[in-house]
Amino acid sequence: MSKDKQFVKEITPQGEDFSRWYIDVIKKADLMDYSPVRGCIVFKPEGYEIWELMQRELDAKFKETGHRNAYFPLFIPESFFQKEKEHVEGFNPELPWVTEAAGEKLEERLAIRPTSETMIGHMYAKWIQSYRDLPLLVNQWANVVRWEKRTLPFLRTSEFLWQEGHTAHETEEEAREETMRMLDIYRAFVEDFLSIPVIVGQKTPSEKFAGARDTYSIEAMMKDGRAVQAGTSHYMGTNFAEAFDIKFLDRDNQLQFAHTTSWGVSTRLIGALIMVHGDDRGLNLPPKVAPTQLIMIPIGPAKTREQVVAKADELYAELKAAGIRVRIDDRTDQSPGWKFNEYEMRGVPLRLEIGPRDMENGQVVLVSRHSGEKRIVQQDRLIEEVRTMLDDIQKQMYEDAKSFMQDNFKSVDTLDEMRGMMEQKRGFVLAGWCGSDACEHTVKEETGATSRNIPFEVSEHKSQCLVCEENAKHTVVFARAY
Amino acid sequence: MSKDKQFVKEITPQGEDFSRWYIDVIKKADLMDYSPVRGCIVFKPEGYEIWELMQRELDAKFKETGHRNAYFPLFIPESFFQKEKEHVEGFNPELPWVTEAAGEKLEERLAIRPTSETMIGHMYAKWIQSYRDLPLLVNQWANVVRWEKRTLPFLRTSEFLWQEGHTAHETEEEAREETMRMLDIYRAFVEDFLSIPVIVGQKTPSEKFAGARDTYSIEAMMKDGRAVQAGTSHYMGTNFAEAFDIKFLDRDNQLQFAHTTSWGVSTRLIGALIMVHGDDRGLNLPPKVAPTQLIMIPIGPAKTREQVVAKADELYAELKAAGIRVRIDDRTDQSPGWKFNEYEMRGVPLRLEIGPRDMENGQVVLVSRHSGEKRIVQQDRLIEEVRTMLDDIQKQMYEDAKSFMQDNFKSVDTLDEMRGMMEQKRGFVLAGWCGSDACEHTVKEETGATSRNIPFEVSEHKSQCLVCEENAKHTVVFARAY
Ligand SMILES: [Zn+2]
Ligand SMILES: [Zn+2]
Repeated sequence: MSKDKQFVKEITPQGEDFSRWYIDVIKKADLMDYSPVRGCIVFKPEGYEIWELMQRELDAKFKETGHRNAYFPLFIPESFFQKEKEHVEGFNPELPWVTEAAGEKLEERLAIRPTSETMIGHMYAKWIQSYRDLPLLVNQWANVVRWEKRTLPFLRTSEFLWQEGHTAHETEEEAREETMRMLDIYRAFVEDFLSIPVIVGQKTPSEKFAGARDTYSIEAMMKDGRAVQAGTSHYMGTNFAEAFDIKFLDRDNQLQFAHTTSWGVSTRLIGALIMVHGDDRGLNLPPKVAPTQLIMIPIGPAKTREQVVAKADELYAELKAAGIRVRIDDRTDQSPGWKFNEYEMRGVPLRLEIGPRDMENGQVVLVSRHSGEKRIVQQDRLIEEVRTMLDDIQKQMYEDAKSFMQDNFKSVDTLDEMRGMMEQKRGFVLAGWCGSDACEHTVKEETGATSRNIPFEVSEHKSQCLVCEENAKHTVVFARAY
Repeated sequence: MSKDKQFVKEITPQGEDFSRWYIDVIKKADLMDYSPVRGCIVFKPEGYEIWELMQRELDAKFKETGHRNAYFPLFIPESFFQKEKEHVEGFNPELPWVTEAAGEKLEERLAIRPTSETMIGHMYAKWIQSYRDLPLLVNQWANVVRWEKRTLPFLRTSEFLWQEGHTAHETEEEAREETMRMLDIYRAFVEDFLSIPVIVGQKTPSEKFAGARDTYSIEAMMKDGRAVQAGTSHYMGTNFAEAFDIKFLDRDNQLQFAHTTSWGVSTRLIGALIMVHGDDRGLNLPPKVAPTQLIMIPIGPAKTREQVVAKADELYAELKAAGIRVRIDDRTDQSPGWKFNEYEMRGVPLRLEIGPRDMENGQVVLVSRHSGEKRIVQQDRLIEEVRTMLDDIQKQMYEDAKSFMQDNFKSVDTLDEMRGMMEQKRGFVLAGWCGSDACEHTVKEETGATSRNIPFEVSEHKSQCLVCEENAKHTVVFARAY
């Protein structure tokens, strides 16, 4: 058996054990490592650079829409959590507490932030006096901690990285508009930049954020049919304003509570990216979010090597100057075949091969990681061709993920039908729901699936609840979720 | 008294009380706010954006020199601190401890990282096996916590933001080269980007980083003559490699300890920026690090207002497209005079005034925040002129800060002379030192000044120790420091 084949064999096939496949891929692609602290991972450069690309793109979108970045403290006094009843119930079970510092016991315990609603609420109450101070549009990039019982790299870790936007507005209408604007920024980002199609909708009351009036989400389907909540946007009403006393003098000189929102995405998007696009050969990154978009591999015998490498270096310089994220692997101690597998496993979207015959013909070969498609292109049109092929791959990956989602999206009428489907193969289920917590709970107990959201757009409106058979108030997407 | 004058009066003059001046400026320029957690501040957008500009610039320099970003856990197990003796002694008194999480007492206490040497040492031991894994060049942008007794916004806060580079090398020579490379990147950044001249040198043993073999620093002089350590770079030798077992098979197949380095700058640079350039009118930012580089203020009577604002909007669009960080203030409820003071107080380096007469002449007026210089320039040469003036201001601010430092830099021969100088006016002192901890300690006790560093370049070499009068081993810079 060749070395190349052995190498690929180290990744468990998806069909055999999806969970093991996931861990194999992230370890072999060098994205992360386990740390000695339970549930906390190390983001290695190959993984962290994916997050940096996401950050850069999202940050620009936030700034275009008038938001500014700030930074709030890591520590939150215990008393702050008591102020919003639902919030404390939602987060208390997951908090780590600092009880001592610099050799002394603290008078009040300090939580490590699981989210900054309470700290920001406290500060906004100081900063907001008049309608002239509104809207207040702030975002924070930060680490947060939720002490999770079961953890999974990227998708559920005790410490993770995220951004949390927090805005305050004069009116409900404006705040709701903001909530929807940010949800749509997330949708566009996840679909266009990560090539991940999503279901956009509203969370049911039992699944909404602790303390929010309404929570909206985008939900993505992994290759095992399970869901990942890829982003959320919350309209808080005046809940946090009342809890933290965020009041302003309005245009009629009346004291009013501000309407607030919050919205966030996190490093769990890295997990979603892997599970939506990856395959048995390893990681598979859409070009826009790939730290390396193009890997160049000079090939051919030793006697022509110097010439080939010189030409490759020349093309490398051109590609780099054109803004392509390119790397060259001209090591001589690994075979081309080994390198092909290696960079496919690492998810580099495009490979360039150049050998002595290509030199003669003024050509190079481009190979798509996603589809395997080969294009022989002229060297003098290289930049154009690389850009076109990266664009094509980006779109193709979206289309393929969308087809997969559609193929694994079923409409059901009864709980039996749903149970059957969940047992055979996972996927998203569209079903009617009467609106009662009890029926939602039954679905979870019986099938392991939770309501993901009430989509804004559905192919059909279901007329009766899949559990109690009463009139359906909503048509809901259910799925098992990470 | 006019409103304008009253406004300016709210900042305490530097000559009256420098500390109060500092607090007045950062509050009025809206850079930060105090948080309810002792010693932890909120970085408001006006302050955080300064940090974002610093990050962007430094991050590019780190990447150009082959470093990649990663992210390591916030929590550090207590046992890790025990592994390097000097390190634990240096940091133990400042650590906050997580002792409970999710309702349960932890088996081992977790420190909030004061720096990540130990965690990274632990991980590097796993990652480094062979000389082929070296050099390992990693940087992290993160929050860190040191529970400080006395705090001062930006300059000394319990939680702060920083970057910490951690590298591992095959040889001492390479590691020392890296230590110096990063020190020089800091020097160039602080001098060119922040317009702050620095003294570059080596720390004395008593002032070096806990666990380092050698520590190097850049030291800046504030307007009250006190020093701020603006960046440090450490050669660790094999101290951390031995403590954490970072070993590799070298080119001769021998097991060796890696030589490691670390280097960092933090949000205290924001404090230095304020104290080096600020004046009685408020903040004064060098153009490269100013979130707003140019403020445009349309002036003139109501009847010509619409025309003037339309022209200003047109110029604004041109400036923005050219990459100038520009804002326009066309509010009608504040006078031009109020606005002039407001943006001077906020440290915006350049002001553009445009009124009806300028319209007629196809001109605008540019005014430097730093020098007060006015230039009348043609609208069709505006971008060029703005760029030139921003460049000039950037350089002028450096030159002025350099003159100030030189004027407040004295060479002394005796402790009496130094004591006298420190009592009259603060500043940096150049003096001979025999190399004994005792003499260094005496200087501190008698004058409140600490050794800042042993500069690489000095105007003169002192021949005898200012305390014991023995032969001087080093010529040292002493100063009171933040
Ligand atoms: Zn029902
Ligand atoms: Zn001495």
